[in-house]
Amino acid sequence: ISKIMAKVIELFKKTKKLAKDDPRRVVHSLKVGLAITLVSLFYYFEPLYDGLGASAMWAILTVVVVFEFSIGATLGRGLNRVLATFLAAALGFGAHFLADLAGDTAQPIMLSLSVFFLAAITTFVRFFPRIKARYDYGFLIFILTFCLVSVSGYREDEILKVAYRRALTILIGTFIAILICILICPVWAGDDLHSLVSNNIEQLANFFQGFGVEYSNEWKEDEGIVEGFKSVLTSRQTEESLVNFARWEPGHGTFKFRHPWKQYRKIGSLTRQCAYRLESLNTYLLAESQTPLHIRDQLKESCSKMSTESGKALKDLASSIRTMTLPRLPNPHIEKSKAAAKDLKAALKIRPCNSSIDLLEIVPMATVASLLIDSISCIEK
Amino acid sequence: ISKIMAKVIELFKKTKKLAKDDPRRVVHSLKVGLAITLVSLFYYFEPLYDGLGASAMWAILTVVVVFEFSIGATLGRGLNRVLATFLAAALGFGAHFLADLAGDTAQPIMLSLSVFFLAAITTFVRFFPRIKARYDYGFLIFILTFCLVSVSGYREDEILKVAYRRALTILIGTFIAILICILICPVWAGDDLHSLVSNNIEQLANFFQGFGVEYSNEWKEDEGIVEGFKSVLTSRQTEESLVNFARWEPGHGTFKFRHPWKQYRKIGSLTRQCAYRLESLNTYLLAESQTPLHIRDQLKESCSKMSTESGKALKDLASSIRTMTLPRLPNPHIEKSKAAAKDLKAALKIRPCNSSIDLLEIVPMATVASLLIDSISCIEK
Repeated sequence: ISKIMAKVIELFKKTKKLAKDDPRRVVHSLKVGLAITLVSLFYYFEPLYDGLGASAMWAILTVVVVFEFSIGATLGRGLNRVLATFLAAALGFGAHFLADLAGDTAQPIMLSLSVFFLAAITTFVRFFPRIKARYDYGFLIFILTFCLVSVSGYREDEILKVAYRRALTILIGTFIAILICILICPVWAGDDLHSLVSNNIEQLANFFQGFGVEYSNEWKEDEGIVEGFKSVLTSRQTEESLVNFARWEPGHGTFKFRHPWKQYRKIGSLTRQCAYRLESLNTYLLAESQTPLHIRDQLKESCSKMSTESGKALKDLASSIRTMTLPRLPNPHIEKSKAAAKDLKAALKIRPCNSSIDLLEIVPMATVASLLIDSISCIEK
Repeated sequence: ISKIMAKVIELFKKTKKLAKDDPRRVVHSLKVGLAITLVSLFYYFEPLYDGLGASAMWAILTVVVVFEFSIGATLGRGLNRVLATFLAAALGFGAHFLADLAGDTAQPIMLSLSVFFLAAITTFVRFFPRIKARYDYGFLIFILTFCLVSVSGYREDEILKVAYRRALTILIGTFIAILICILICPVWAGDDLHSLVSNNIEQLANFFQGFGVEYSNEWKEDEGIVEGFKSVLTSRQTEESLVNFARWEPGHGTFKFRHPWKQYRKIGSLTRQCAYRLESLNTYLLAESQTPLHIRDQLKESCSKMSTESGKALKDLASSIRTMTLPRLPNPHIEKSKAAAKDLKAALKIRPCNSSIDLLEIVPMATVASLLIDSISCIEK
């Protein structure tokens, strides 16, 4: 029994952490509950139910399936669903009437053939990477609706009336989902993307600054900092989906409609390239801390200066992305850190080496510079 | 018109490439078409339709939604769908009967409350990372079915009969989807994962060997090789989902049930760590090829030997993963490349430096060694 108790307590702790990490999760859950409850009211009120009948089911189905965490995702799914439903229903009717003309025996064969080919072709289209990213759900619904309309048309006589009611309920469901998603504590994917990107840059800056301070002493992994930039390494997937969601969103706050979201992908991949370098640097430092002390002392100063200044430059960059202003150019911190790098190179030429650690940092410098240049063009757009 | 023609031709080319890159895509599309057509036969044959009625629609819906590219994904979705449907239907009936007891006016309120809380809690549960990875779809279906059963029970009198028919059609749909997925040209996610992992290691090996040969001459980016290891950098997402799918699969071919799929995740992340290093090395080489020639000549031999031997060791590793045999241990290539690394270090101690390029490679060596050790434990399992 005590084992079970321990597990329950652990579960409770995990739940609490999940809710604390992002309180919007709790709000989102309540929003979903609210939307579904609202839609289910159709069943309880006589006048509403009379208009829609059993099709009211489709409204519930739509809300459950369409409601997503961010507004962009919900809008994308909703639009996909509505457009695909209407398009597929129209095509389905077409196939149905054509098959009707062909006579009673040929009808099932015609229908089967059209279903087979349409399903196969649409499934193949879903493999195109661009379509997969934004319209995957739409194509799924397209197959579904086409099959339902064309095939069930074979049995039901009132097919037009049924289709009309279903389309109406799907519209209502999508509308309610989007409305609640936007009106109550909205979560914009664009905002999330924006802060993810600037956050990632800041993580790198933290690493540089932490390195700058600690290089003078024994280098040891500071868990917070290292975890920070490791999370940058694996952020690609989140970033990618946020970009796709953000592109569905209308203008909001400081972001105009058609904000250049794709630029964020570029900044993100530059940031990750820089993070790859830090990752090598980090393992390198952990492995090779046996550099003789006297050499180290000579290089210490320019090393930690270079690193600290790089960190400051990155911090500037992150905050200028956050506030959407142009970064100062040329950035004084970058200049200083370039100068420090030059000093270091000079020092290395005289001295015997074994301190290649430091040269490694010149590469991040180049990346920082290119990051800067790129981000300017982005913010200007 | 010529513009449109050009676009059509381009589209055609892209389609051809997509089909050529992985012919299984075409087969998959045809399989989906076949499965849906089979299911729609329920509508055409009198005796089949009489047993199921309009619920036959749910069979089509199930096939469209459950049928995925790999067997693991299809099984996962199918099991999720079936289990969630039954569980939610049972709970929905419970809620329905409880609400029935409460009397006519209280019934809608009771139902609304239960729908609200269940939807909110289930939505929150979907945020748990582990559940999201494997049971996300099941929880979605759970909300959906619970709402449909408990709410529509308010209107329909024959609710048990309707529920029985729907459950039956969902079972039939899932069964047909899984059957066709397994019987016709099966695509095992486990196989894909296995070859992805060994392929990634081989890409790294190619880079090492290419580097070993070319270092003697001017270093230039060989596009094929560089693209090869860049693809390793971004393979995390694919790997992750393949692991999740593979865990749904029963034993097949040389893989037993409960094959240690999670180990592949470890190997994959070690491979990526090695790839990060190569990425730094690569940019570094592109930036700094001004090393004086006489120094270069001295280091050339041990460098290219080290690199080539590392490449060979990785190739060995990749092929031993592919054939699922234990790698030879200690691997002679690793020994040779470690020896070369030692030579290099010694040479650097005497010489003035500016060739820190080479030291960078010691880090990959360490990674290679740890890769080896880790993979042995994996294959043994």
